[in-house]
Order: sequence, then C-alpha cells, then structure tokens
Amino acid sequence: MAKNTLPLPLGFLASGIHAGLKSKGKLDMGFIYTAHPAVWAGMVTKNAVKSAPARRTERLLKSKGPLRAVVVNTKYANDLTGKQGYKDADDTGTWAAQALKVKANEVLIHSTGVIGVPVPRPKIQKGVKLGVSALSPLGGEDFSKAILTTDLVTKTSARPLMVGGKACWMMGFAKGSGMIHPNMATMLVYILTDAAISRPLLDKALREATNRSFNRITVDGDTSPSDSVVVLANGASGAKPITKVGADYKVFLEALKAVCLDLAQDVIRDGEGATKFVTVTVQTAKNDADALLAAKAIAHSPLVKTAIFGADPNWGRILTAVGYSGAAVDEFKAKVAIGGYALYDGQPRKGWSRAKLKTILQQKDVNIVVDLRLGKGKETVYTCDLTDGYIDINGKYTT
Amino acid sequence: MAKNTLPLPLGFLASGIHAGLKSKGKLDMGFIYTAHPAVWAGMVTKNAVKSAPARRTERLLKSKGPLRAVVVNTKYANDLTGKQGYKDADDTGTWAAQALKVKANEVLIHSTGVIGVPVPRPKIQKGVKLGVSALSPLGGEDFSKAILTTDLVTKTSARPLMVGGKACWMMGFAKGSGMIHPNMATMLVYILTDAAISRPLLDKALREATNRSFNRITVDGDTSPSDSVVVLANGASGAKPITKVGADYKVFLEALKAVCLDLAQDVIRDGEGATKFVTVTVQTAKNDADALLAAKAIAHSPLVKTAIFGADPNWGRILTAVGYSGAAVDEFKAKVAIGGYALYDGQPRKGWSRAKLKTILQQKDVNIVVDLRLGKGKETVYTCDLTDGYIDINGKYTT
Repeated sequence: MAKNTLPLPLGFLASGIHAGLKSKGKLDMGFIYTAHPAVWAGMVTKNAVKSAPARRTERLLKSKGPLRAVVVNTKYANDLTGKQGYKDADDTGTWAAQALKVKANEVLIHSTGVIGVPVPRPKIQKGVKLGVSALSPLGGEDFSKAILTTDLVTKTSARPLMVGGKACWMMGFAKGSGMIHPNMATMLVYILTDAAISRPLLDKALREATNRSFNRITVDGDTSPSDSVVVLANGASGAKPITKVGADYKVFLEALKAVCLDLAQDVIRDGEGATKFVTVTVQTAKNDADALLAAKAIAHSPLVKTAIFGADPNWGRILTAVGYSGAAVDEFKAKVAIGGYALYDGQPRKGWSRAKLKTILQQKDVNIVVDLRLGKGKETVYTCDLTDGYIDINGKYTT
Repeated sequence: MAKNTLPLPLGFLASGIHAGLKSKGKLDMGFIYTAHPAVWAGMVTKNAVKSAPARRTERLLKSKGPLRAVVVNTKYANDLTGKQGYKDADDTGTWAAQALKVKANEVLIHSTGVIGVPVPRPKIQKGVKLGVSALSPLGGEDFSKAILTTDLVTKTSARPLMVGGKACWMMGFAKGSGMIHPNMATMLVYILTDAAISRPLLDKALREATNRSFNRITVDGDTSPSDSVVVLANGASGAKPITKVGADYKVFLEALKAVCLDLAQDVIRDGEGATKFVTVTVQTAKNDADALLAAKAIAHSPLVKTAIFGADPNWGRILTAVGYSGAAVDEFKAKVAIGGYALYDGQPRKGWSRAKLKTILQQKDVNIVVDLRLGKGKETVYTCDLTDGYIDINGKYTT
C-alpha cells in the first residue's frame, strides 16, 4: 500500500521531531494528539520485567479514562532504570499535559530503545515542547519515522470503514523488528480511528485482532519489556458509537484485523536482518492449540530459519521442530510441503528434487504447510529467516 | 585433559572407519565392542519425532538385555525415512551381530546426520564388515573422530575410580555441536567403564549425571530426533558389582558426573559457530524450578547470545530474558553481574563502565550471575554465543 501518504483520521494530529536522543538530526520523538477525547484499549507486554512506561500504561488502562495524547521517545527504553525511571515517565506525562492543556493521565508515554540507561530528562523535556508545537494533520509520516529503532522502514496501514452510514477512517503505525515473539505486545503499535465505539467493545475487538496478528509473529523469540499495542477511537467522524456486537461492530473488527495483520506482517518483513517472509501453517492437527504449538516451534527454530536463509533444501528440520513442540505428531501420518511442493507424506516423497526445492526456497516469500492428519486444528504464524544480518545488528551495536 | 591418548576401559574395543558416507576418506562409521556383556543404561531424545535408531534404542532399553556392541553411522540420521528406515536400522544390527557373533538385540545402532534421506544400505553393510575387522583396544581415537558431524573437535573425557578396592576406568565420547537443547539426549554420548554395577543403579546414576550436564546446556534450542546418551559397564576390571547406594555407588556417580559434565561443556565449546563459553547462574530464585527457567531463558536468548558474541555491553537483555522466562522476578530486587562485575542492583549501578564491561565480554569465558533475592533456588546452565558462524554452518550446508 502507499506508505506515508495516508491522512490521519479526523481530529487527530501527529508529529515527529529530533530531540537530540539519536545522532545526525534523526527524528527520535513522536507525538499524537486528539482534540476529541478518545476511548482507547491497549495491551502491554507480558514480560514480568516491565519498563516504567509499560507499567504506567497498565495503570492508565485500569483507570479507564479517555486518552488525549501519546508521546513516544526512542533510543532509551526507560526499563531497568529504578524508581527514577518511573518519575521520568510521570514527569514526561506532566510536561506534555501542560503543553497540551490536558490531564497528565490522558497522556500515554512510551519509550523504546536500550535497556538500563536513564532517559536524558532535559532533552526529553525540550523534545516535548518541540513535538507539541509541531503537531499537524499531516504529521503522520514524521510520526511513523520518529518511533523507529532498528527498523529499516516505516510501517503504516489504513482502512476505510462505513459505520452506521458514515465514512470513517482507521490508520495504524508500528515500530518493531527485533525482540518479536508471539506473546503479545512486543513492539509499539498505535491505531487511530475517527469511528466511535464503547470501551468494552474496543477492548474485545483489539484482543481478537491482536490474537490473529501480533500474537502470531516471531523474529527471535525475545519478548520486550517495553512494548504495547493501543487503539484510540475519537468519534470525530460523527458516526454513531458502536455499542453492541452487530453489523457495525463486525465492520470495525474487520478493519482492525486487517490493519493489525498488515502491520504485523510489515514487522516480520522488516525483521532484524530478514531477507525472507515465511508463512507457517499447521493444519489437521489434533486441535488448534496443538496447531499453534507446532507452528510456533517451526517458526521459532533457528535451524529452520537458517536453512531458509541459505535456501538449504533441508525440510527434515520442519517436522523435527514439530516433534519437540509438544504437539501430538505421528511421523508416519504427517505431510510437509514448501511452496506447494510436497516433500514428505509419511515418508520422503519419491523423487523429490533438491534443485527444485532450492529454487522455491530462493523466493522472497516462503510458504510452509504441515498436515498432521490427526484432527481439525489449524493455525498460521509468520516469521522471517535468521541471517548474519541479525547477528550483526544485535552483536555489534547496543540496540 | 589429554585428548585421544586415553585408553579404553578393560574389555572394550573400538574402531572408526571410512565407509564412503562422507567424502575424502573421512572416518564416518564408529564401532564399540565389549567381550564381556555390558550392563547398560541410556536416555533417548524426548522429541516426539524419533529416528528409527532412536526408537530401536528405546526398544532395546525396555528389553533390559545386555549390550555387546554399538555401531554409529554419520552423514544420515535415518530419521523421517518411513518404514524402510526401521528395516535399515534392524538390518544393520543383524549384519553387525553376524560379524561379531553376538545377538542382534545386543547391538545398538545409532545414526546422525541429515534428516529424511535413507541410509545407503550397501555402503553401511560394507562399513560394518570393515569396522568389525578394525576393532582394537587402541581404537578410541578413531571412534571419537568417526562419530562427528559438524563438530570441529573430538570430545572425550575419562576418570579413574576405585570400586571395592579395585582400580576401574571410565571413558566417555561425545559428538554434538548443534541442535543442542537442555531437554535430554540431543547428541550422541557413549560412556564405557570396566566397573560393574546393577542395571537399576546404573540407570539412576545416569539420570542424575545427565540432569546436571547434558540437560543444562543449550546451543540453539533445537532438539534432535536422533540422539542418545548411553553408558556401558562391562565389569572387566573384576571389581565387585555395585548393587546398593553406598560408598562405591557414590564414587561411581561422581566419576560419571565428572565425565558427563566434561563432555557437555566440550559440546558447548564446540557449539556451531561458537566463539565464547558462557556460564549462566541464577541464584536466590524463589525455588530451583524458577532458577532453571530463568537460567535457560538467558542462555537461550538470541539477543543475549549475539550481545556476548559482539562484546556489546548490553546487560539489560539478561534481566529482560528472566522477565519472560516465567520465573518470579522483581526488577527492584534483582542483581546482575558479569564476570564478577556488578552492573545492576535494583537499578543500574552508578558509574558502571561500558569500557570495563566490554573488556570482560571480550574474554573467551563469560560468567553471568543473576541474583533474584526471592528465595534459595539456584541453577547453572551453559551456553555459547550466537555468531555468523552458526548462520553459515546451518544456512549454507545441508547438515
């Protein structure tokens, strides 16, 4: 889809500025503001070690108040920074609230970057002023750039939706390319819409959309202590609020699922060092839970991921990963296909060609399908290959 | 310790020969024979997908008969090879039994290498003849070479032990450098001794020794479908059999634990692409189970392992891994030290030096200690760094 040329939903302003956190004038703080208080829902990392901003986000979620703004800084995660980190996050909220003339509890603060290093307070304070003054209806592109860390590309997605006869708009932004694991909220994602919806339904929709997108991707299996997915619905379209599970809710949910899946797949395509996009489907598993266990084990296996990087026709590693996944598997019943090419069906398929498989594995998109023939369970997860680029990014720089 | 110059225990013969499985005359089949039938114990991979030899090993273990010989082929794992693979493993046992004049059920067959490709029967059959005729008391060195796959070095360890006043000898061989995960038997390990011990006690000792060695190491988290740890006690020393848990058993157990730990650490030092040996200790955890969860999560984290490779002073990733491990953790109580250098104590330690930490991380051996200050649990696991060498080995060759 067209990147960075998409308008923000009605009533939202955004900006991205250089606060001096990163070098060379790079955008390093992002801001979102909504004139109409937004109903919001969010999910926070399940990591037991949480950053100060992640815990603050949890607190605001519990308070169930509306949201007016989001402030994101990169370079520093404000995680493992002691009590001072909590004060830094709260003070950032206060500074932004004062500049925006809203309440501090209506401002979400997110930080992403290196762990264990305090945020530089004077730079953040100055950045907040700059960012607030730069807010604009055209600020989406700068915002999408300002929230990136090791990402190589910005990640946005949008969908129109008709709610009660009114045209609404939904737009999402994501950052994230490492520390990605299917255990919720291991990146920063902001989804904005001018539709109106009740808080419980927004929460329900976000959970369902997340479960089929951000909870189905893996880059490296590491779960970040910082990251969050939030959705803000400000109702500025004038559309009637969605308050029950009906046709309008379904339209809303489909739009949200589509935006989440776009962003989740964009994160994988931009996975640290990734050169391939890999779709892993496990079907006819004993049940869905088994299908998910098996698909995640395949998607998480360094041996599978390095083989895909090198286009090594080593399909045996796939069923081996299923074997240790905990899912029920019978190697005399299972089938394995890559890119539609059947390789194993209870035994190696006679005459399969290494050369042909290598050609399939050299494609940018690799599609693995495993049939376990034990039931009706089916799940799909997304991953990337594991490359020397990943080693470089994570071994040579403090990210 | 001195490699490959160690004698075999009394009554054991070994050999390693070139059967034409690998190229360039490389040793590719290994043989062990004992004139005295050996009491034995073994543990087989927990992967639900098991190779034909692994399932055959399970069957022989259940039959509780003595063992007379072990035949190992490399290059082909005989895994995911259908019913034919089972016939190939059984026939290899028959061929070896005929050549050695023992029963087929007294011969263990192990295969290691690529998954999903049938073993070349004529080469194996010819190799068995060659290997049996080459058996010698001095064959340990050839055996140690013949069982290797992606390993760069042979792995042996030996200990003398006094049992009931008699001098006995224990010697172990291992192969393995990838697909290593702390879930048992993810490599091939053979431990031979001329001590005598009852089968139940040998089994008990092996379980205890394995739990503190092979179950405490990780290279990549992948669990192989092939691999096994077996110990053979042939009693050829003439020492009185150990039949109860007493002083002699304790001596035996300590020797076995030492040999297993040596071999396990050797496997890590030879981990695919490894440049560093990393010891991870988690202590004062809520309990031992939590300590193990936390230590494994650290040892398994690609972000921790790449940081160690690059000597990136990014200690925050360590406590982050503990955070998603499932272990109880309070980031305001926890402490982190690397190489004895305290970095975090409820908050980042004031004035810690990136330069000093970098120097510590540049050492070949890296020692991580995490104190959770929640109880008395303590566990240590061993791992290596994650490097571009690992990517090369697993992406560019079919291993």
